[in-house]
Amino acid sequence: MIAKQPENSGCSGASQQATGDVQDRNLEQTLSKIKNKLIVMSGKGGVGKSSFATNLAVALAGKGFPTGLLDVDLHGPSIAAMTGIEGLLDVSEDQRAVPKAVGDCLKVVSMQSLMKDPDQAVIWRGPAKTGVIRQFIADVLWDDLDFLIVDSPPGTGDEPLSVAQTITGARALIVTTPQDVALADVRKSISFCRAVNLDIVGLVENMGPFVCPCCGKTVELFKSRGGRITAETMGVNFLGTLPFDPNVVKACDEGTPIAAGSSDSSFAKALDQVVQAIVAKL
Amino acid sequence: MIAKQPENSGCSGASQQATGDVQDRNLEQTLSKIKNKLIVMSGKGGVGKSSFATNLAVALAGKGFPTGLLDVDLHGPSIAAMTGIEGLLDVSEDQRAVPKAVGDCLKVVSMQSLMKDPDQAVIWRGPAKTGVIRQFIADVLWDDLDFLIVDSPPGTGDEPLSVAQTITGARALIVTTPQDVALADVRKSISFCRAVNLDIVGLVENMGPFVCPCCGKTVELFKSRGGRITAETMGVNFLGTLPFDPNVVKACDEGTPIAAGSSDSSFAKALDQVVQAIVAKL
Repeated sequence: MIAKQPENSGCSGASQQATGDVQDRNLEQTLSKIKNKLIVMSGKGGVGKSSFATNLAVALAGKGFPTGLLDVDLHGPSIAAMTGIEGLLDVSEDQRAVPKAVGDCLKVVSMQSLMKDPDQAVIWRGPAKTGVIRQFIADVLWDDLDFLIVDSPPGTGDEPLSVAQTITGARALIVTTPQDVALADVRKSISFCRAVNLDIVGLVENMGPFVCPCCGKTVELFKSRGGRITAETMGVNFLGTLPFDPNVVKACDEGTPIAAGSSDSSFAKALDQVVQAIVAKL
Repeated sequence: MIAKQPENSGCSGASQQATGDVQDRNLEQTLSKIKNKLIVMSGKGGVGKSSFATNLAVALAGKGFPTGLLDVDLHGPSIAAMTGIEGLLDVSEDQRAVPKAVGDCLKVVSMQSLMKDPDQAVIWRGPAKTGVIRQFIADVLWDDLDFLIVDSPPGTGDEPLSVAQTITGARALIVTTPQDVALADVRKSISFCRAVNLDIVGLVENMGPFVCPCCGKTVELFKSRGGRITAETMGVNFLGTLPFDPNVVKACDEGTPIAAGSSDSSFAKALDQVVQAIVAKL
């Protein structure tokens, strides 16, 4: 049952063992129904990882692929707000969480959907976090999916490690911005994926060139081309650059991701190319 | 000794106890020499927390205050690059780490200064992280300081919790950007500070209005005024808005923070007002 207290996850004893077995079975059964499991990662927060994960999932669903979007960020879950889902998740007869439908082909689950007070800080120590992440992934009742997009917590610590170890057969998509400080962290992300044997689909450069809506001039807010150069240097596929567009920020805040509309903006076009590049690599 | 393996930190036994006692004594002695300990926090990564911490420390040092800048981000330490310090830290006769001097009044210590390969991902589980953070803070040989600025890891998990619990008497500065998704996380940060009895000096809104260098028109990249409204709603001091300036991104990447120069840019002016507001609150 998804709302169970995570504090128990490290205990031993017969009933705990039985719970663990059920969880393992649920996990295996759930993951076997999903063709492509993609973990969206970033070495650094604030590079637009959640916004990209949301737009990617919405774009794949828009192409008719049955897609799931799972937000595993315990401390700053933002997928619920970005997709406009509200309220707690329903629970199935066998006590599993039922994802929320967003349109025809997209199902969404966020940690936010488990919190009664969304402003409450979750202060969990490492082992409890590992338990809850595993439980959270195992106890969701996904249908057959072509894609599961997992919005992983940033960094290279406990939480992305638990996600990578729990979702067997997953592959990583790494998001960065072009500036050096973000790229230093992205090299750590690539090392992390290699250390835990997580195959990398490729690297996406977010928050690229910004075109001033007044004069049409392009401004490099976070420098340029750093993502492509890092991908080449580290031997990782480069999947493309997404321009910076304040409308993407607004759309995510309003729960209507830009990929859901019929926008012909340069962001929407660039996103479509990145989505095609990802699908081609699978 | 700062380079000791963190894996031992949870063990018991006489020699471990003695090590713990020395660490407690070092910690108490170190913290007693520092007048104002400010932990720079954010609920969400990528809001410019490290950039703000660096510029704040450089600005305080520029006003003649002896200032320390400590980067405790295990997974994405960026202060070393932002302040242009290189190489491993020196070790004193009594086996404590010696901060690097940057100009006359600023001393800097970063996790990066302990890593031989800066691209290596640190994959530490929670308890090891707590041990290393505590050891890292205790084993640095600070002089008498007016200010210690601590760049805390983002979020509300193990790492900021360890920092808050280790640095007794510290107060928090919270950094955010104006958009809703960041603000949802900042409300969690405020709840976190209150849950762990960490006094909040105030909230700084970063990445505010951007003035196009070509046409001079102001563009709100990440929306506007969200930080001020959140501060008012949550009963926290609002310390000011810093505009978005691509030169700040570049300057941090180059290790020459903008506060160090004689810039009369709108960012430098706004930063000076924020620094004055912080000093006035202490």
